[in-house]
Amino acid sequence: MLTMPNFLAADDIIKNALIEDIGTGDITTTACIDQKSVSKANLISKDNGILCGLPVFARVLTILDNKITISAIKNDGDRIVPGDIIASVEGPSAAILTGERVALNFLQRLSGIATRTSQAVALVKGTKTKIVDTRKTTPGLRTLEKYAVRTGGGRNHRFNLADGVLIKDNHIKAAGSITNAVNRARSIAPHALRIEVECESIAQIDEALQAGVDTIMLDNMTLEDMTEAVAHINDQAFIEASGNMGSKNLSLIAALGIDYISIGALTNSVTALDISLRFVE
Amino acid sequence: MLTMPNFLAADDIIKNALIEDIGTGDITTTACIDQKSVSKANLISKDNGILCGLPVFARVLTILDNKITISAIKNDGDRIVPGDIIASVEGPSAAILTGERVALNFLQRLSGIATRTSQAVALVKGTKTKIVDTRKTTPGLRTLEKYAVRTGGGRNHRFNLADGVLIKDNHIKAAGSITNAVNRARSIAPHALRIEVECESIAQIDEALQAGVDTIMLDNMTLEDMTEAVAHINDQAFIEASGNMGSKNLSLIAALGIDYISIGALTNSVTALDISLRFVE
Amino acid sequence: MLTMPNFLAADDIIKNALIEDIGTGDITTTACIDQKSVSKANLISKDNGILCGLPVFARVLTILDNKITISAIKNDGDRIVPGDIIASVEGPSAAILTGERVALNFLQRLSGIATRTSQAVALVKGTKTKIVDTRKTTPGLRTLEKYAVRTGGGRNHRFNLADGVLIKDNHIKAAGSITNAVNRARSIAPHALRIEVECESIAQIDEALQAGVDTIMLDNMTLEDMTEAVAHINDQAFIEASGNMGSKNLSLIAALGIDYISIGALTNSVTALDISLRFVE
Amino acid sequence: MLTMPNFLAADDIIKNALIEDIGTGDITTTACIDQKSVSKANLISKDNGILCGLPVFARVLTILDNKITISAIKNDGDRIVPGDIIASVEGPSAAILTGERVALNFLQRLSGIATRTSQAVALVKGTKTKIVDTRKTTPGLRTLEKYAVRTGGGRNHRFNLADGVLIKDNHIKAAGSITNAVNRARSIAPHALRIEVECESIAQIDEALQAGVDTIMLDNMTLEDMTEAVAHINDQAFIEASGNMGSKNLSLIAALGIDYISIGALTNSVTALDISLRFVE
Amino acid sequence: MLTMPNFLAADDIIKNALIEDIGTGDITTTACIDQKSVSKANLISKDNGILCGLPVFARVLTILDNKITISAIKNDGDRIVPGDIIASVEGPSAAILTGERVALNFLQRLSGIATRTSQAVALVKGTKTKIVDTRKTTPGLRTLEKYAVRTGGGRNHRFNLADGVLIKDNHIKAAGSITNAVNRARSIAPHALRIEVECESIAQIDEALQAGVDTIMLDNMTLEDMTEAVAHINDQAFIEASGNMGSKNLSLIAALGIDYISIGALTNSVTALDISLRFVE
Amino acid sequence: MLTMPNFLAADDIIKNALIEDIGTGDITTTACIDQKSVSKANLISKDNGILCGLPVFARVLTILDNKITISAIKNDGDRIVPGDIIASVEGPSAAILTGERVALNFLQRLSGIATRTSQAVALVKGTKTKIVDTRKTTPGLRTLEKYAVRTGGGRNHRFNLADGVLIKDNHIKAAGSITNAVNRARSIAPHALRIEVECESIAQIDEALQAGVDTIMLDNMTLEDMTEAVAHINDQAFIEASGNMGSKNLSLIAALGIDYISIGALTNSVTALDISLRFVE
Repeated sequence: MLTMPNFLAADDIIKNALIEDIGTGDITTTACIDQKSVSKANLISKDNGILCGLPVFARVLTILDNKITISAIKNDGDRIVPGDIIASVEGPSAAILTGERVALNFLQRLSGIATRTSQAVALVKGTKTKIVDTRKTTPGLRTLEKYAVRTGGGRNHRFNLADGVLIKDNHIKAAGSITNAVNRARSIAPHALRIEVECESIAQIDEALQAGVDTIMLDNMTLEDMTEAVAHINDQAFIEASGNMGSKNLSLIAALGIDYISIGALTNSVTALDISLRFVE
Repeated sequence: MLTMPNFLAADDIIKNALIEDIGTGDITTTACIDQKSVSKANLISKDNGILCGLPVFARVLTILDNKITISAIKNDGDRIVPGDIIASVEGPSAAILTGERVALNFLQRLSGIATRTSQAVALVKGTKTKIVDTRKTTPGLRTLEKYAVRTGGGRNHRFNLADGVLIKDNHIKAAGSITNAVNRARSIAPHALRIEVECESIAQIDEALQAGVDTIMLDNMTLEDMTEAVAHINDQAFIEASGNMGSKNLSLIAALGIDYISIGALTNSVTALDISLRFVE
Repeated sequence: MLTMPNFLAADDIIKNALIEDIGTGDITTTACIDQKSVSKANLISKDNGILCGLPVFARVLTILDNKITISAIKNDGDRIVPGDIIASVEGPSAAILTGERVALNFLQRLSGIATRTSQAVALVKGTKTKIVDTRKTTPGLRTLEKYAVRTGGGRNHRFNLADGVLIKDNHIKAAGSITNAVNRARSIAPHALRIEVECESIAQIDEALQAGVDTIMLDNMTLEDMTEAVAHINDQAFIEASGNMGSKNLSLIAALGIDYISIGALTNSVTALDISLRFVE
Repeated sequence: MLTMPNFLAADDIIKNALIEDIGTGDITTTACIDQKSVSKANLISKDNGILCGLPVFARVLTILDNKITISAIKNDGDRIVPGDIIASVEGPSAAILTGERVALNFLQRLSGIATRTSQAVALVKGTKTKIVDTRKTTPGLRTLEKYAVRTGGGRNHRFNLADGVLIKDNHIKAAGSITNAVNRARSIAPHALRIEVECESIAQIDEALQAGVDTIMLDNMTLEDMTEAVAHINDQAFIEASGNMGSKNLSLIAALGIDYISIGALTNSVTALDISLRFVE
Repeated sequence: MLTMPNFLAADDIIKNALIEDIGTGDITTTACIDQKSVSKANLISKDNGILCGLPVFARVLTILDNKITISAIKNDGDRIVPGDIIASVEGPSAAILTGERVALNFLQRLSGIATRTSQAVALVKGTKTKIVDTRKTTPGLRTLEKYAVRTGGGRNHRFNLADGVLIKDNHIKAAGSITNAVNRARSIAPHALRIEVECESIAQIDEALQAGVDTIMLDNMTLEDMTEAVAHINDQAFIEASGNMGSKNLSLIAALGIDYISIGALTNSVTALDISLRFVE
Repeated sequence: MLTMPNFLAADDIIKNALIEDIGTGDITTTACIDQKSVSKANLISKDNGILCGLPVFARVLTILDNKITISAIKNDGDRIVPGDIIASVEGPSAAILTGERVALNFLQRLSGIATRTSQAVALVKGTKTKIVDTRKTTPGLRTLEKYAVRTGGGRNHRFNLADGVLIKDNHIKAAGSITNAVNRARSIAPHALRIEVECESIAQIDEALQAGVDTIMLDNMTLEDMTEAVAHINDQAFIEASGNMGSKNLSLIAALGIDYISIGALTNSVTALDISLRFVE
């Protein structure tokens, strides 16, 4: 379930999406639909995947008209197959028709992310590896998309540049060395945050371990290099594998004993899950 | 080029994206990067496709720090291949590092849309058919995504429910008949708007033509049904083909003499184009 | 009735208006009115005209305090005369007094627009001519004011620069010719939009018809010129008459067989309809 | 001149007005106008009146494109006659065309208010009477409209319910008596504010004077009643005349020795001043 | 009680505070608290002072989850001592835990202001002197903080630069003289506003009285100078004492016959009142 | 220095503060100050402390009028004493006068926080203890206030509920045990975050260490209890002391070997530093 506090921010996203789509008014619906008409419709899956975003779907419609009721048959995180009735919707016909597209746009996208995540999670099943997301999310939708990753069984990496320290090559170059960069980060970062460094070689890993980092990111390494790195790190830090992981063999990487595999494609290369709303009366 | 007036609205989208990603501050960059440090970086393609969103990429960075300059080598609409230098970026290192992810998130997504659109457009080349988008866009990003469709050679369908009349099956059911629905729409729609009706049978097409509609949408029809429909319509109205067009043989459909093929997947099932920023000094 | 989806946007307008008028607090009411006091008041017409904006009036008050109830006796679109009780209002006295001015400001202005529109509509009764509005609306209130025009029996022209193509003299000059301008517009405009061209001579009308425009606007023509133009167009396109129509003889123009007369004065030169709120207990 | 601090708030009003009018993009201009084209245009009066809103007109255009320059020939407060060139505008053609309507909507409305105000001011010339506005302004535009009243030679009444105490009949009824109402107001109102009471009879005036009010408002009185009231008040308080003053003989009222005449029609029943933008190259 | 109209603006302040504190989600609570868990907690005073902000405290929680109920035992303005139960809170545990800090931040700060104000008010008891606040409030919280001053028994000075005329030394220098400054202010200020001048000498006081000001502010004067000034003014104007009053002997100043003592420290040097929320089941 | 990316969010805070203070316009300044007048003023310390917020002070003025220049003599973090000239300000007199109060409100408050923090930091000098802030900040100003804590030599704790895991007694109760709570938190928290648990007894500390927490918070313990706790923890976790630390002997606590002392009073019980702006010409 999308937890309640998130709705404070989600409501603005939803309202903006409705304003964007309705513009100065839904002319077709206003013309054709009697204001007093009431309808019932079923939300139906036409695809295989993991459902995500039903509370958002519902909120879109109830923001438009709070007389609409949505009765859930499936819930976020449930596996759905073609033909499944996900929920039934009942209320003023005009509002349902006007809000349908925006409600589905959220639901299809979030379900697409949850589905893709669940596929990656399945590939590392039985290992200690966690699938995590990145900051490669759609501008404006990060909170919702990271929720979809969790719904698909994944874990979240940093939400933003303030809630984690991740020292990359450019930071290292600018600071002079990994040691310098880590020390400078430790001197200002809130103590609630771990420190992670991106490493490209065993020498860098050694320096990072020496500096006492919490997590080492292996960036764009081959399987062989990662094998060596894992052995070298030898449980002195958490290990994250990163870099085009969307197109790599996740089972093999997980088998190396990697703690986290981060995949940008979970959120930036998504196929919408096909779900539709069918009026039944 | 993204035309200037659009930036009034785009600026808010960009600022929100930056606030979303920066949160309460980029701790790593603040710790590691000297405030006075200046860098130069190249924006480099690692993929084949159509560039789109360079003005947005640039705007993200200059909103963060207006001392950053972006020199374009490629422009929106240009074809790019792996290794192409798209632009060079110069300015305060800290701001470039802080803004990099958001700038790339926009650029990769919009280029992904332009690229996918250009592939569809290529398939109907030599015919009169136009590839058009739908309202299946990412909530909050419609104006930018529809710009990406144009950049890829596509055309835009309605921007929202106010700037076009599109009568679908539920509207027809509610109004009693196509004739009623068209008449009611015509009686309230601004005269600047055409009227389009979704038809599923020859009988419906006949009624729509009789009612004087401007455009007929053939929804989810087989090639055979579309062939018959085109012959039947016989240039009395524009024809749009719709319904899961993302996975259909566009060349065959275009060959039938269809005016518009609308494809939701152009915007809701996008693979980000791989583009990266590489610091050179 | 103001249709519900519009309220998503109207609510922000209403809240801003209340914040504007209340400032840091209604000192007089806070001082004089017991917080627990409850009142009943009648909304009374002191003028002749068409009522418009009652849902907005009601929304102003219920946003301030949702314990206020408004019972409508007249509805938007109804003709009202001096002495008519339009609605009765009941609820906390302080909130009614605090919201009264803003609620009336909306109602008087919208009713003024509906009234002026209905007068123009009456003048063209019995002809095919429709009275349409323009983009000469009050900044920030366009959606509400165009609703008032419809309430008065008028039709809406474009809502904004995106939902209609209207090629004016400067566009023609810049594009080189009407033919060029129309072709360029057709090549990028969504197919849901008609194309309209402003013409000042028979030669321009000929070129526009040749270019296949949907609507021809006759700008600031004399009755004689319009007569000739209508004959010349001969039903090959819709015809709109424009240019200081607020001060012209609409009956004569309508009699020529003009489809649309657009009048900026409907929204930019409005006399507020006199309506007041009278406390009865 | 519109003083600078006001622009902090005015900018939001202007941006909203542009977003409202541009919608998802100015299709006609984008199609017809070369992005590099530059134009010069003259802002020309076609009416008699008082100019108001030129800084707003200019700001609309420069917000759209800061390469536009506006050279003022007339300034706010100047009298203009048909044919007067008010200012010349120079810059990118597309931006000028896109912003023209919004810029004129502000200018015509504000000039209409200044003009109407100046006519009222002229009627009371030579007396001590000041023409003042009311809170009957257009929702969202109060600051600008009250500026227009000042530009036309009028004075401002309260900006909102927080910056003045005005005790009306309903407040008196609720408080039990004028004395009670004044005492309660005095006990909570900031000492920077005067206290004004609406009176309908000599008895009420006596009670108000006794209570030590600063200003007495004579509401909807006849000339005879006002004559008696002025004599009775005998300079013990300021006097404001109010109530449908838009349609009354202001000269006669001013001659009575009234300090302030407040007129709602200054802002709620305005005829736009006819001003147009003509491209010269 | 915080009067209702204020909540229109307060709600935005509260929502922003919640968004600021919740960020992308309350991880700890989401992890540890069952979504269906319901709790009861007591709001308990651990300090001596005046309660202020209970409606804001309640609103924070009900905005987060409208199933939370708050039963007040004490009300704004009541004196509280350590151990007092102020209110009981009941509802979903997760929402109470998530909102607790923000709700207390408002309550402790506003109670701190009310308490400090009440201490100042006690020092001038029995005199005609009123304790008033200044514009030295926390950016963004002025309306709430001025409410807290009233709750503590104080009075409000100007809310902002628009609802009072206060001529300070720099204004006098710029205008040339007190007489000029007063005349210029009187010529543009709404008649609902009094005019106050800051004076530093008997000569300035004489000029101000001559100019007919309503209130004279004695700025940073010694007791001796104030004694002389009060005698000199001799009830011809209200008198306000100002300047580091937070650290002065208010009883002595009040005894001089000063009307108002304004104290910036009431709002800019506040000690939060210690109040906590204790879960009871 | 306040780093640049923060200004994206700070600008909105600053604009709102200006709008709050200017209301519908600075009447006194508009009346008295010639629009063309230019002034020079010195920003002068009248107090001992640590300067903080000069970039915010400057931004307030330049947002009002970008012709104002501020030349810094002291910088954020510098110690200031009475009489120090902090900066000189030059530009349009009206804008300086209008913005002065808001600019000082920010500067005095932030400098007050930095000063109080620096006093606490001085008390623990020579130990490994860091002074950290809390979430007891002023609603809406957290980013600025946490910047002031850093400026005063302190460190930041969590910015919000999303960027740190802090398990308190109510979370423990709800989860059943510290072990459960830690495990549940670890299963959903991003790996970039450390886990901290509030402990009240040695038994709880044992359980927390067993559960592998990163940091233990000793809540409201006596010196004796803390002594025992530190020995017991024996460097197996970081240690934070919390609970009314604003009124405790920080030197003694630091001497125990505590890593962090968190003090709510740094931000919720602040005395504004006395700084003023003096016009010199």
